[in-house]
Amino acid sequence: MSVSVGFIGTGVMGAAMAGHLLDAGHHLRVYNRTRDRAAGLIERGAEWCDGPREIAALSDVVVTIVGFPADVEEVWFADGVLAGAGRGTLLIDMTTSSPGLAQRIDREARRIGADALDAPVSGGDRGAREATLSIMVGGEPAAFERARPFFDLLGTNVRLQGPAGAGQHTKMCNQIAIAAGMLGVTESMVYARAAGLDPFRVLESIETGAAGSWSLSNLMPRALSGDFAPGFKVKHFVKDLGIALESAREMDLRLPGLDAVIELYRRLEQAGDGELGTQALLALYERGGV
Amino acid sequence: MSVSVGFIGTGVMGAAMAGHLLDAGHHLRVYNRTRDRAAGLIERGAEWCDGPREIAALSDVVVTIVGFPADVEEVWFADGVLAGAGRGTLLIDMTTSSPGLAQRIDREARRIGADALDAPVSGGDRGAREATLSIMVGGEPAAFERARPFFDLLGTNVRLQGPAGAGQHTKMCNQIAIAAGMLGVTESMVYARAAGLDPFRVLESIETGAAGSWSLSNLMPRALSGDFAPGFKVKHFVKDLGIALESAREMDLRLPGLDAVIELYRRLEQAGDGELGTQALLALYERGGV
Repeated sequence: MSVSVGFIGTGVMGAAMAGHLLDAGHHLRVYNRTRDRAAGLIERGAEWCDGPREIAALSDVVVTIVGFPADVEEVWFADGVLAGAGRGTLLIDMTTSSPGLAQRIDREARRIGADALDAPVSGGDRGAREATLSIMVGGEPAAFERARPFFDLLGTNVRLQGPAGAGQHTKMCNQIAIAAGMLGVTESMVYARAAGLDPFRVLESIETGAAGSWSLSNLMPRALSGDFAPGFKVKHFVKDLGIALESAREMDLRLPGLDAVIELYRRLEQAGDGELGTQALLALYERGGV
Repeated sequence: MSVSVGFIGTGVMGAAMAGHLLDAGHHLRVYNRTRDRAAGLIERGAEWCDGPREIAALSDVVVTIVGFPADVEEVWFADGVLAGAGRGTLLIDMTTSSPGLAQRIDREARRIGADALDAPVSGGDRGAREATLSIMVGGEPAAFERARPFFDLLGTNVRLQGPAGAGQHTKMCNQIAIAAGMLGVTESMVYARAAGLDPFRVLESIETGAAGSWSLSNLMPRALSGDFAPGFKVKHFVKDLGIALESAREMDLRLPGLDAVIELYRRLEQAGDGELGTQALLALYERGGV
């Protein structure tokens, strides 16, 4: 069944995801701050729309995936999605954003009789391209069931984690695990080099056992080769960890690992390395910036 | 070809490893501080020997795997292995110990014309039982080639990492990666619970992606179930991280992740939890000890 879907945010992730919805035969309207980035989708049949409010007024389902919580605010509130949506519209924010903002969107959506879900993803541009994302969802079970066919076009690990905000909280769990993990794999390689070992050979000894992790096997070979091209950018990691930290503070949680990591990544960003991949932490250590 | 092997240290790891050498048909002499723990091997045909010096004097190959660097000192120096060994004896310490101590053993071995290797392992009691250990070796290539047939009876990932001490340094890389990784996976689960999520369901969402790690998938389910039985004991982790920290200081390395972790694990040990598994870090967080 073809559904009228509005898609806001056609960056690297969004463009790939919107493409899967097009391929499945849905009628797609798109909006993006930079129109050029929607050109590929428009060529493939998507319809350009002049703004978030307009797109929401014309769509049964609205999906947004933008950059920062401030972008989510701009797209959803004031003259945005929530002003255009009506009774029964299914509203899905897939940006990694704050749990509190997801709950605010949910409250506004209820007021107008729409269904809202927060559904951040992990898996990166490759997961978006290959439709193998993990999708972490917060909201009502009925809304989740409505959204499920769309999620299944985008990911392979799709789970409802709880009420509004639970998707964002789960994404924070993901980022917190990655954060201190990056510290571990980076310090391990820094030690290897300082001790005069061949770090690639060390990797072969340790990645098969209890030290094994996605970051160790996927990011450290790149970092050791001096390849700091972004899979995931430092500036976005700093954003996510900032949300996690704020959220942890609201819950009175002490997370010293997270504190230590965010301090280092902020230093990396302040040094002008925000556009590099998160594996650039190795460079910060190696230039004595720690 | 049956070789006369002396094996010192028949704890959980050592007994399993020595068993594989027996199974392969080697003549095995054993010594352990607590004789009872060698009983199973003696029943299977190993010969009891009265001490490290005696065992070294009668063996072509000596393997030791004991607890702490102080135990390594006691077993190897003074009236120990090096006093009994002669020209051509192959001497292998598989204890996780300090790189400096491995280099001291190597120097003494050279003096008497023996070959020394440091060869710590990872893979735990299960890896020892199933002969799937990772073995990280430091020493001369010729000595490594002599030892290779024995290592192949014990592990599946056997690598020469460099000269004397390189095996221990590689094991430190392993422990450093695990250390901050434990911080990450633990804080992730602490956050999940505080946010009111089902942490087991969160695990299902995050373990398949960039947050994935051996610790997350293997240790966190146990910790969340309140199962703190040791795969690897807190007190041994504190020992290993202490060696890593000392070694990093000697190299003038700043490793803030390692600093943060060792502080927390020491606190756990001081609280009387040294015999628990490393996943007990979750309990420290949950009782507000952080």
